Amino acid sequence: MEKPYVLGLDMGGTNSVLGVVDARGQVLARTSIKTQQFTDINEYVDALYTEAVKIVDPLGGFDAFRGLGAGVPNGNYYTGNIEFAPNLPWKGVVPFAELMSKKFGIPCKITNDANAAAQGEMIYGAAKGMKDFIMITLGTGVGSGIVIDGKVVYGNDGFAGELGHVCIDRSENARLCGCGGKGHLEAYASATGVARTAKEIISTTTKPTVLRQLDIDSITSYDVFKAAEAGDEVAKEIFDFTGKCLGEAFANFVVFSAPEAIIMFGGLTKAGHWLMDPIVKSLNDNVMRLWKNKVKVLFSELKEADAAVLGASSLAWEA
Amino acid sequence: MEKPYVLGLDMGGTNSVLGVVDARGQVLARTSIKTQQFTDINEYVDALYTEAVKIVDPLGGFDAFRGLGAGVPNGNYYTGNIEFAPNLPWKGVVPFAELMSKKFGIPCKITNDANAAAQGEMIYGAAKGMKDFIMITLGTGVGSGIVIDGKVVYGNDGFAGELGHVCIDRSENARLCGCGGKGHLEAYASATGVARTAKEIISTTTKPTVLRQLDIDSITSYDVFKAAEAGDEVAKEIFDFTGKCLGEAFANFVVFSAPEAIIMFGGLTKAGHWLMDPIVKSLNDNVMRLWKNKVKVLFSELKEADAAVLGASSLAWEA
Repeated sequence: MEKPYVLGLDMGGTNSVLGVVDARGQVLARTSIKTQQFTDINEYVDALYTEAVKIVDPLGGFDAFRGLGAGVPNGNYYTGNIEFAPNLPWKGVVPFAELMSKKFGIPCKITNDANAAAQGEMIYGAAKGMKDFIMITLGTGVGSGIVIDGKVVYGNDGFAGELGHVCIDRSENARLCGCGGKGHLEAYASATGVARTAKEIISTTTKPTVLRQLDIDSITSYDVFKAAEAGDEVAKEIFDFTGKCLGEAFANFVVFSAPEAIIMFGGLTKAGHWLMDPIVKSLNDNVMRLWKNKVKVLFSELKEADAAVLGASSLAWEA
Repeated sequence: MEKPYVLGLDMGGTNSVLGVVDARGQVLARTSIKTQQFTDINEYVDALYTEAVKIVDPLGGFDAFRGLGAGVPNGNYYTGNIEFAPNLPWKGVVPFAELMSKKFGIPCKITNDANAAAQGEMIYGAAKGMKDFIMITLGTGVGSGIVIDGKVVYGNDGFAGELGHVCIDRSENARLCGCGGKGHLEAYASATGVARTAKEIISTTTKPTVLRQLDIDSITSYDVFKAAEAGDEVAKEIFDFTGKCLGEAFANFVVFSAPEAIIMFGGLTKAGHWLMDPIVKSLNDNVMRLWKNKVKVLFSELKEADAAVLGASSLAWEA
């Protein structure tokens, strides 16, 4: 019997979105549950199953489904386990893929969210036809999914591709990263990093900016974007700095895997050319001569609402 | 007819060594020519062929050979071309693999020397059985070969794995690299980088050291090693600094590909524990918590005289 569909699960710290996807990458149906509501992982799986039945039954039931792919914080592709996820209610090591495939009766593959995004981009998005690219997710944190020779890189332990945690500043006053490290890219180039840059400039200079009208502790990257659009020089300076950090880091990524493109995804990409222009400049100013003006820098072509589900679902085709 | 042998060519700027290798990785015979002697690539290929016949004929002629693998400066695995090699007598793009397989009558594959070393280490050396590791060559320059999921990474254009050219110092007074870049790892952690560090410390401090007795412009990394062995504190400081640079860089490589091991090869590894100890300390001080004390740092297990030929020859098994 043919199995024309897959399920894609995008598990976030807050919401878990489950979607039905066909072979052309169309999200045919979706549903969701609140992740934090379930302190027991079995209750979570049961609740997800109850919701899944509602969107799966009209399409012929689970027999019409090849499998389920899940993008999960701290999800390990090799073991199928969620391992010590700080933002999920279940502690320690959770055999998530095993629990899911038992309950759903179909194969289940998991990975982390950035790897899922890379997979989705390769099959349905801006990386269609590319065999070598790097996906950078710019959200609350900075994540990455690296594709080499058509395959997502998992490394020796399943956790490869943590490019948010390369060190870009080894000076004394480098920023602390949420992971406990110091000077990591994530502390500068995430949405929260942009807010930190704003706070730093406002509190250590007297430069005029509309951002001073806001509560300094609750400035968001979106506020900075709106200010840049309105011509605010400090807001532009913030994106210039963020883009410079990213471009310098990208130059180091390029000598590693010589990608055809670096593709960015996530909330911060809404900043558009304010972010893109300084990235491209900084990348080409810093990259080894061999690659100058040769590596494409692109924004994701997937709709943000669909991307995570699509990316996760694409794992299921290989399940 | 069975073909039990391969040829391995290690082309250097000075010498080109050609060896006969069997399936167990034994170098059964070897010969060499002077690379710089031939201003015409065809003369070089002819001379190499004449030499090859002498070691190939006793083993049954070229019919007993599966192919030839060559480790070549600026060699492109995809195209088989040597591309703009600064240290070779032939300028521009040279269709080396094509010329060789025509002349020798057997398939020819080429790559650069560091990738050849990685390939050799995986088949015959310290990386036997590993699927994910990074090979770092510490010689006049710093080269690298990256293996992911059992395959050398070539990237979109064939030139992936130039880890000597990651930027490790973005400050004003960062060292210039031979490639034209600034602050690159190669300018600090190569044999010439070690000599530069020695020169810097001697000329900018008054610290007592036996190295002051040498001509400051001709101090070598081997001089520094001998001084460290004799208990010289400045010599130890030089290796501590070199190891710190390498360890910090390795910490960034680990978040990329999560390798099982980083394996070092080349002249500078003769420094042994003087170099290894600060590398391991610096790697584990800097790497993301997830990988602390988990990534092996090893020296190559291939005999230096054989390694390059063995590594190159291993390409021929897949030819």
